[in-house]
Amino acid sequence: MTAAVAVDLGKTGCRAVLWDGAGPAHGVHEVPGAPGLAADGGVEAARTAVLAAVLPLLERAPSLRPAAVCVGAAGAAAAPRAARDLAGLLLGDLPTDEVAVTSDAVTAHAGALGGRPGVVLAIGTGSVAVGIGDDGAYARVGGWGPWLGDEGGGAWIGAAGLRAALRAHDGRGPDTALLAAAIERFGDPDRLPVALGRDGNPARTAASFAPDVARTATAGDSTASEIIRDAATALGETVLAAARRIGGDGLRVAVTGGLTGLGEPLLGPLRSTLAASPCALLLRPSLGDPLDGSRLLALDARTPHEPHVVRVRRAAPLPTAPTPPVTPPAVA
Amino acid sequence: MTAAVAVDLGKTGCRAVLWDGAGPAHGVHEVPGAPGLAADGGVEAARTAVLAAVLPLLERAPSLRPAAVCVGAAGAAAAPRAARDLAGLLLGDLPTDEVAVTSDAVTAHAGALGGRPGVVLAIGTGSVAVGIGDDGAYARVGGWGPWLGDEGGGAWIGAAGLRAALRAHDGRGPDTALLAAAIERFGDPDRLPVALGRDGNPARTAASFAPDVARTATAGDSTASEIIRDAATALGETVLAAARRIGGDGLRVAVTGGLTGLGEPLLGPLRSTLAASPCALLLRPSLGDPLDGSRLLALDARTPHEPHVVRVRRAAPLPTAPTPPVTPPAVA
Repeated sequence: MTAAVAVDLGKTGCRAVLWDGAGPAHGVHEVPGAPGLAADGGVEAARTAVLAAVLPLLERAPSLRPAAVCVGAAGAAAAPRAARDLAGLLLGDLPTDEVAVTSDAVTAHAGALGGRPGVVLAIGTGSVAVGIGDDGAYARVGGWGPWLGDEGGGAWIGAAGLRAALRAHDGRGPDTALLAAAIERFGDPDRLPVALGRDGNPARTAASFAPDVARTATAGDSTASEIIRDAATALGETVLAAARRIGGDGLRVAVTGGLTGLGEPLLGPLRSTLAASPCALLLRPSLGDPLDGSRLLALDARTPHEPHVVRVRRAAPLPTAPTPPVTPPAVA
Repeated sequence: MTAAVAVDLGKTGCRAVLWDGAGPAHGVHEVPGAPGLAADGGVEAARTAVLAAVLPLLERAPSLRPAAVCVGAAGAAAAPRAARDLAGLLLGDLPTDEVAVTSDAVTAHAGALGGRPGVVLAIGTGSVAVGIGDDGAYARVGGWGPWLGDEGGGAWIGAAGLRAALRAHDGRGPDTALLAAAIERFGDPDRLPVALGRDGNPARTAASFAPDVARTATAGDSTASEIIRDAATALGETVLAAARRIGGDGLRVAVTGGLTGLGEPLLGPLRSTLAASPCALLLRPSLGDPLDGSRLLALDARTPHEPHVVRVRRAAPLPTAPTPPVTPPAVA
């Protein structure tokens, strides 16, 4: 069985796992992340984070030598040269014959659809769809942030619910149970602007109200139901745009992210929208997470994701005998 | 003729004018503002700002003694005790028999409608309506900020235009000339999130796109036209809610603020909405600014605004001979 190392490098955390061919040799090892490959000093910061996550795993399994290491890194799509530099440095640092670097969106896609073409919709505070076609065509749709897009994501749903609550409070809009729900979560409506601004992250605070909107919709409130329906429609349009741009009918679609926790009230209408579209898209359960996708891309260079992967191989393979892990470079 | 001093005390600037009964004795004198009466140390900061704005005007017109001074101050509605403290202090500081303090929303209302009951809609980056009824009933509607409301204001219109532009760019929405307009103003659509976040005031930056949305609507773009129509509808609902809450048919409505510069594309549909409502509201040109309202409330204690004005009078009037202006108190 072929061993491989999978890494998911984000801005807050860097997670790594060593596979021995049958499963993870140990649990996931997580260390602090790095500010993104496109940032100043991004390559060195990424290298430091990856080595801090990976080397302890290799030390604990000295008999395993990974055939390949794959890193899904935030910012890799915007900085292909930095991705190549990182891959080259890691090939020198790690006891492996091959290092692959790609964006975290690509590893998330590969994980959710098991390396097959299709569209992966990620919904959390925001919303973004990534499509990868049979021929490697790539489309990123949405993900513009709370001011410019992210329609149908958690902050969008939560803010729409709070706006409707305040319209009712003002007498500008119909009565809705969202007002009582907002008061229960945030207190006096007159203090809502303060509550939303308190921690400097109004998108996250607004998103915390999304489950209340879904619950209020399920309980039969028509204003909340309309918000959830509009969210499902917006998410459907996001998926359809990605599907059209990678060109394909009957494509698989997977939905990932924390907002999937809203369940059928959101996913039911989304499924109907996609099934009814001319592209006849099929909503499937997500097959895995970004670490699964990273492992898959480490071991398989023939997926449709390959045009978006920077892969460097050692000219002469290392001897098959295990090599002692190297020491991480000093942090600058 | 009766002389009076009018003051408009905001967070950025404090403007004052001395009226000699026929008109301003000099131009408007502006000095830096104060953080709001409800803030810590707000009364002393307000007093310092008011005296810095007013005393030089009195020194330049030693023969005039104002019968009354009125200050429209940000935060006065939320801090009635601070308003009373400020009025008492200013009565000691200034050569006048009467000092009135009220919120800047009340002076703006009095200025725009010449002291009569009705609804004043202020539209700039945000949107807020203030209604004052025949009997002094007061309603503030909207003004919740860009996350929670301000529907139909500049940031709302601009952000809606940018969202529509990016939907077209993504292939999530219909083609619209808003995309070309957004590129002309902000450059590469992929850099829009950066452009919007650059100065830390995305609401203001989004609002700067509102005139482009209005122009694009006038040129016949259906997406832009729908945004402007929706804005007019939202503004109409804001005015109607205020009118209902102060209870009155055939009320006057005035619109103030920078967004009135969009002109008929926005105000036309708003006028129609208001005229068609069961309340038969009449949109009128604004009669004056907050300084005009402040002067009016200084001289007239019988407007419907009076319940919202804190007014203190000297027990024994000062002698009618001009009194030399006092020195401003040292800043703590």
